Amino acid sequence: MTHELRRHERIVALSGGVGGAKLAEGLMRAVVEGEMTLVVNTGDDFNHLGLHVCPDVDTALYTLSGLANPQTGWGRRDETWSFMQALEQFGGESWFRLGDADLALHVERTRRLAAGEPLSSVISDLAERLAIPARILPMSDDPVRTRLDTEIGALDFQHYFVREQCRPRVNSIEFKGAEKARLSPGAVRALADEDLGAIILCPSNPYLSIAPMLAVPRMRELIRSADVPVVAVSPLVGGEAVKGPTTKIMNELGLSVSVLQIVQDYADLIDGLVLDSRDAGLRDRIDLPVTVTDTLMHTPQDRLRVARETLAFAATLRG
Amino acid sequence: MTHELRRHERIVALSGGVGGAKLAEGLMRAVVEGEMTLVVNTGDDFNHLGLHVCPDVDTALYTLSGLANPQTGWGRRDETWSFMQALEQFGGESWFRLGDADLALHVERTRRLAAGEPLSSVISDLAERLAIPARILPMSDDPVRTRLDTEIGALDFQHYFVREQCRPRVNSIEFKGAEKARLSPGAVRALADEDLGAIILCPSNPYLSIAPMLAVPRMRELIRSADVPVVAVSPLVGGEAVKGPTTKIMNELGLSVSVLQIVQDYADLIDGLVLDSRDAGLRDRIDLPVTVTDTLMHTPQDRLRVARETLAFAATLRG
Repeated sequence: MTHELRRHERIVALSGGVGGAKLAEGLMRAVVEGEMTLVVNTGDDFNHLGLHVCPDVDTALYTLSGLANPQTGWGRRDETWSFMQALEQFGGESWFRLGDADLALHVERTRRLAAGEPLSSVISDLAERLAIPARILPMSDDPVRTRLDTEIGALDFQHYFVREQCRPRVNSIEFKGAEKARLSPGAVRALADEDLGAIILCPSNPYLSIAPMLAVPRMRELIRSADVPVVAVSPLVGGEAVKGPTTKIMNELGLSVSVLQIVQDYADLIDGLVLDSRDAGLRDRIDLPVTVTDTLMHTPQDRLRVARETLAFAATLRG
Repeated sequence: MTHELRRHERIVALSGGVGGAKLAEGLMRAVVEGEMTLVVNTGDDFNHLGLHVCPDVDTALYTLSGLANPQTGWGRRDETWSFMQALEQFGGESWFRLGDADLALHVERTRRLAAGEPLSSVISDLAERLAIPARILPMSDDPVRTRLDTEIGALDFQHYFVREQCRPRVNSIEFKGAEKARLSPGAVRALADEDLGAIILCPSNPYLSIAPMLAVPRMRELIRSADVPVVAVSPLVGGEAVKGPTTKIMNELGLSVSVLQIVQDYADLIDGLVLDSRDAGLRDRIDLPVTVTDTLMHTPQDRLRVARETLAFAATLRG
């Protein structure tokens, strides 16, 4: 057994938005060109202003192409805002900020979907046009919509997340359409690839970003049957989410707010955990192989380091 | 009989794109606030990138709100172009230039049309939001599409006008859907208004911009039955169009390239003509009341002067 990832090995990563995309960008650089398939949550997708918007997929596209805005965690760097300003004058909805260059992605995707092209084909083509050396695929070409039952009623994900800024208390989470959705064909191929070396669950919200993907039929089964190490990178750092409502939601759902809870929820899927050094004290209470490292990714170097440590750890788990 | 337009009188103007919109802007200022209804050609409308684009209506909205780009004759002043630049990177169609702020108009209109709102309601509301002190209405809420049979095949208007830059020789012009289209209700009301004082055909292309409006059932009949002076402002200056393919198309359609031809084609509609001073030599060959003035509108002052002269001339024609 070697503790190095084999050079021509392929990996599959599952990711939601900003934190997950950062690790995915590091993984992309840590493996050989074209050898990573990133499967991205589309439960957050929604129709806004008549446009098909895929927030997590777009964060992946922008992060992996170097176009992401490092300040906001969404949208593009060096963006202009003429559209939004004019839209406000016309009385259009302005709670979801769409930058001028960002709009091109939504308009072009919406046009191609309306012409009958599957979402996964549109996304993988756009990734190529952005010269991203990895495959980026939505989890499904079929609509899955994350809906939150909250104290102020049922909310679509973006209404909860952006418009209401995660304020309402969440009672339960539903992934509408998941049971009928089919995994995107490229995701099935990547998970069944005989050269597959590891599957990585990126540090995204387990309940809002990873769970919708696991709710699509065959996803759990394909991950379990892949016969490669499955490693999750903990989305908690010192017991807190770096960004977003992970711990608030865990609390509201009556879960214990701890990496231990997440490990328990991932128990039937993962072979190992990358734990943040601030949570190292929990190590002995986790009944799985664990590696401990600083998982905060402020710089491109951080991303590459965490990615390499994750892949090296996965290699140690190979049977 | 007074040679002054009565102060509280209403007027209806018919217009296509840039030249017509300039006069319309002058007319709007020449009459009392809210007393002008501008009926605009929608034969140029098309679906582009999944968006409902109304080039002539938008030129009217921008010109009458002071937002028009004086250099281009289309689009907005102080525009940014991030969308177009990003769209090109994604391989989207870029022959029709949509500025970032301009996009807001198309996205918002498309969204409202998809929600079932009639075009005329969307446009009159957008005009209000731009604080335009006039009613702007599309000729119809129903689709009418100007198609040109050319030497390189049938072309939708914008493909001919923008993509092919009016180069192909035109054999004939068709207004698809016109026979089934209904005039927009506001246009009917404005033309039947008992306080109507004049109807002005703005200096737009008679064959591409005014003809589609006249092809909509009841338009000719309502103009003729309005019992008010109908005045056309000649779109030719020194026998040439100020902008656009008017004379090229007249030539290709086998028409004589002259104001006389246009007068003949408007003969059953108009009671008088505003002729440019460069064409004054033709005055005696026109069997209609004619007033002669400099019709070139370079400045806001020019627009107001031509508008006032046109309205004063119309007042002299009142029976």
